[in-house]
Amino acid sequence: MNTPKIVIVGGVAGGASCAARSRRLSEEAEIIMIERGPFVSFANCGLPYHVGEVIKEEEDLLVASPELFRDRFNIDVRIQCEVTKIDRENKTVTIRKMTTGETYDETYDYLVLSPGAAPLRPPLPGIDHPAVFTVRNIPDIRAIKEMTGNGEAKSAVVVGGGFIGLEMAENLHHIGMQVSVIEMAEHVMPVLDKEMATMVNEHLDSMRVDLYLGSAVQSFENGPDGKPLVNLASGEQIAADIVIMAIGVRPETGLAKAAGLDLGPRGGIAVDGFMHTNDPNIFAVGDAVEVEGYVMGGKRLIPLAGPANRQGRLVADVILNPDKPKPFRGVQGTAVCGVLGMTVACTGETEKSLGLMAKDGKVIEYEKVYSHPFSNATYYPGAQQISFKLIFAKEDGRVLGAQAVGLAGVEKRIDVVAMAIQMGATVYDLEEAELCYAPQYGSAKDPVNMAGMIAANVLKGVSKIVHWPDLENFDGILIDVRDPEEYATGFAEGAINMPLDSLRKNLDSLPKDKEIWAYCYVSQRAYFAERILTQHGYNAKTVSGGILSYWAADADA
Amino acid sequence: MNTPKIVIVGGVAGGASCAARSRRLSEEAEIIMIERGPFVSFANCGLPYHVGEVIKEEEDLLVASPELFRDRFNIDVRIQCEVTKIDRENKTVTIRKMTTGETYDETYDYLVLSPGAAPLRPPLPGIDHPAVFTVRNIPDIRAIKEMTGNGEAKSAVVVGGGFIGLEMAENLHHIGMQVSVIEMAEHVMPVLDKEMATMVNEHLDSMRVDLYLGSAVQSFENGPDGKPLVNLASGEQIAADIVIMAIGVRPETGLAKAAGLDLGPRGGIAVDGFMHTNDPNIFAVGDAVEVEGYVMGGKRLIPLAGPANRQGRLVADVILNPDKPKPFRGVQGTAVCGVLGMTVACTGETEKSLGLMAKDGKVIEYEKVYSHPFSNATYYPGAQQISFKLIFAKEDGRVLGAQAVGLAGVEKRIDVVAMAIQMGATVYDLEEAELCYAPQYGSAKDPVNMAGMIAANVLKGVSKIVHWPDLENFDGILIDVRDPEEYATGFAEGAINMPLDSLRKNLDSLPKDKEIWAYCYVSQRAYFAERILTQHGYNAKTVSGGILSYWAADADA
Repeated sequence: MNTPKIVIVGGVAGGASCAARSRRLSEEAEIIMIERGPFVSFANCGLPYHVGEVIKEEEDLLVASPELFRDRFNIDVRIQCEVTKIDRENKTVTIRKMTTGETYDETYDYLVLSPGAAPLRPPLPGIDHPAVFTVRNIPDIRAIKEMTGNGEAKSAVVVGGGFIGLEMAENLHHIGMQVSVIEMAEHVMPVLDKEMATMVNEHLDSMRVDLYLGSAVQSFENGPDGKPLVNLASGEQIAADIVIMAIGVRPETGLAKAAGLDLGPRGGIAVDGFMHTNDPNIFAVGDAVEVEGYVMGGKRLIPLAGPANRQGRLVADVILNPDKPKPFRGVQGTAVCGVLGMTVACTGETEKSLGLMAKDGKVIEYEKVYSHPFSNATYYPGAQQISFKLIFAKEDGRVLGAQAVGLAGVEKRIDVVAMAIQMGATVYDLEEAELCYAPQYGSAKDPVNMAGMIAANVLKGVSKIVHWPDLENFDGILIDVRDPEEYATGFAEGAINMPLDSLRKNLDSLPKDKEIWAYCYVSQRAYFAERILTQHGYNAKTVSGGILSYWAADADA
Repeated sequence: MNTPKIVIVGGVAGGASCAARSRRLSEEAEIIMIERGPFVSFANCGLPYHVGEVIKEEEDLLVASPELFRDRFNIDVRIQCEVTKIDRENKTVTIRKMTTGETYDETYDYLVLSPGAAPLRPPLPGIDHPAVFTVRNIPDIRAIKEMTGNGEAKSAVVVGGGFIGLEMAENLHHIGMQVSVIEMAEHVMPVLDKEMATMVNEHLDSMRVDLYLGSAVQSFENGPDGKPLVNLASGEQIAADIVIMAIGVRPETGLAKAAGLDLGPRGGIAVDGFMHTNDPNIFAVGDAVEVEGYVMGGKRLIPLAGPANRQGRLVADVILNPDKPKPFRGVQGTAVCGVLGMTVACTGETEKSLGLMAKDGKVIEYEKVYSHPFSNATYYPGAQQISFKLIFAKEDGRVLGAQAVGLAGVEKRIDVVAMAIQMGATVYDLEEAELCYAPQYGSAKDPVNMAGMIAANVLKGVSKIVHWPDLENFDGILIDVRDPEEYATGFAEGAINMPLDSLRKNLDSLPKDKEIWAYCYVSQRAYFAERILTQHGYNAKTVSGGILSYWAADADA
């Protein structure tokens, strides 16, 4: 059947991609795209930046208009229409015109659900205060800009320190507002591992964003001036002109559930590798569905535009392409966030996600290495230090995940590792990667190579590493192999200064019956020290990441 | 033997990496590093930027001093010493102290040759003029800066438009000099394919660098003011305060050759995968050796720091690591060059290199696609257009190479493709890559995804493409599917304007018995048009890359 009638519910990202690809594959198909809001295919990832006046015009957020879908793709776009019911037996949907309340039925051969995910808005007392907002679409942003656009609002509370929370914090900060961020976890960016996210905490702190970590909102109040007061569980109260709720999203599954479609263990719509729901004529894509984790399996909810677009395209291919496409390969969780000049990015598994997998019985033995390479050759101006964490399988060195934080060159390295993970690369492959090098762009040993080399040394037994938390139960000798003037700027508790370049002369002062752990600034010199010690018969190890990782961890203690 | 005596000839990149890694693997090995120049381990990739005052201090170029090698690595560094002879039978080298002329012999268990490559300086009349320079080391730069540093030199001729030539041109331009570039090929960056390099020509032109393409230097003269005059084969004469010769490098093989070591077909020292020469006790690494091309095989001379470092490390592992390492995996030719604000990068094979391989009997059927994606979401300020060329195998879609040119985000995409090529990825893998996306960093469909999607459409037959040079023998209909106001800004010869959004209404005006080729600005809309036409029974194709690629090619005509 190359002339099916396809009804798509939701006109952003996955839905819009499905519609356009469907038309490219079939001129005869009847394609109807139904969107609740007033806009289709808008740039939801750009919304925070419109609040920050970085994206000046609202119309810049409109990637494609209903007219374009009509004229170019011959798609019947119905905006401000809501699908209220699916009748699977008769293959019809009930559509309500939101402007008039009028309802009517529409038949389908294939139904594609792309309803997205809605910001969480828990039933806290006072949450209906008119200055408490969520961020999902253009009307939301209009409402926020009505308060922030005239310069009268001076302070904001952002509840939630994840991607959207921090993007909103950045943009409210950018237009000169005093911003507080309230986060239930001990650190912002809950998707990252703690010791990496702690650097983001510190950066926000240095930019004078007020952080309330490990804090929960208990209620909102209407202050005497009509502005909201935010009450924390701790008893603290924060006054603000506006509040942004960004504590996460929940897949929009109401319609699917009411129609008896299966949901998955994480509460999203359950689909197979071809985005089929349990009804062969109904597909689902985007933020509302559960997909397979690519690296370690398991069901995931990943509300990101890239996978949504690919899923939308895939559904069009499944319906209309005579060549059966390959199934959706799952999601790696590659993500990036700009945070007041800092870039935070990750791909693949974290220790946190591996911990969750282990609880589900999926255990993998892994190791991790920390490094602090520069974005480009340090002898070329502008090089910025990156904090990099690489997680890999102990058995075969397969790369499982990476996280990076810094001011420049961060997402480039995560992109390379993302590609590596997709292709099943090991740390030895990273070690050997041949990447672009000129001094303004990178280093002859790129940060990706460096992480691979360190990990390869660990796997080959050339270097034995420990991590700062291991120090708690350590009764050996901790040596700081930096120069005395560096040591004087601060050192790890209990560390003895023993500079690398005089280590060979001072070997006799060290015991052979105790473990010796070495660290330096980033632990490159510590690794050299470890090699010297090991070869002279000492039981030496390197503390991965050096004092930089210590300070990051310590700041959080 | 964990206590061998290792003599390393050459103290930069490969040699220095080998020395440091050797010491980390063995405290007992005797390691002697012999360097002809006054410095070891200097940043040769940074030399042009010191001329440009971007890297202000000469000492910033000194990555590691002889003292550091001595104190930290316990390596016997001998600078300003030249190895003049290898006695393979007795395993000794003859060393000449360049300051005194004194010579002496040194024994070795293993000899590692890392002599590098020397800039070509052909015996043209007048080339010994004191203002004609080459760029290889710090003394070279000192000599150049003596002329450029005081602001008196106003004009420069750079002979050779490759990496070093253009980096020198950028830096001489940066300090305010009028720069001419003379290149024998029809375009600068001879490593790129012509239609990609042409964009670099245009950029240089727009920056008021005088280009002499398809031009050869015939001789130099001493002008009346003592400054050099450059005579071209065309009869033109260019006056300049200084001349930089950057027409390429030649591997330093004299020592190896005299010792009876085998050279390869390209004139470099022949080595196996473990960097062994034909003498089991002699290794060679870096710019002087021939290595295997990773993608298509064949011997290559690739003078780049990254592979040199990896080769140096590998030799240390071969000599000292009880676990036999994996052989060197060959070189992809990943490279990047900054050209007055523009970034030019490539990885893998080009059409040019595939053409050379084909002449050697290594034929692969390939296709290529052109795209012009933006560095980040166009709705976020600062997005810059990238010209991207992807080459892939027709049989299975394996990625063979990529080239990109643009003002931002260029090397990131080439790095991702480099990793993809290393892992044997296909265009379908690029299509599915899950890369970092937020609007300031990329697009939900990243340029890498876009190139993969276009290529996948071609391989699956969803789109049929042609290239601008094919137009020469075309007798069908060429349609420009842009809007009339775009068409009015210029169009391809013979093209009829037929805007995409009214194409369905105008189908009757097109013949079904002739091929119809469609293009637009970048050929995304053309692809949509092709799909409409094909499904209505027309024989339609898309011209890859659109009018942007036409203009790039045409500029060169």
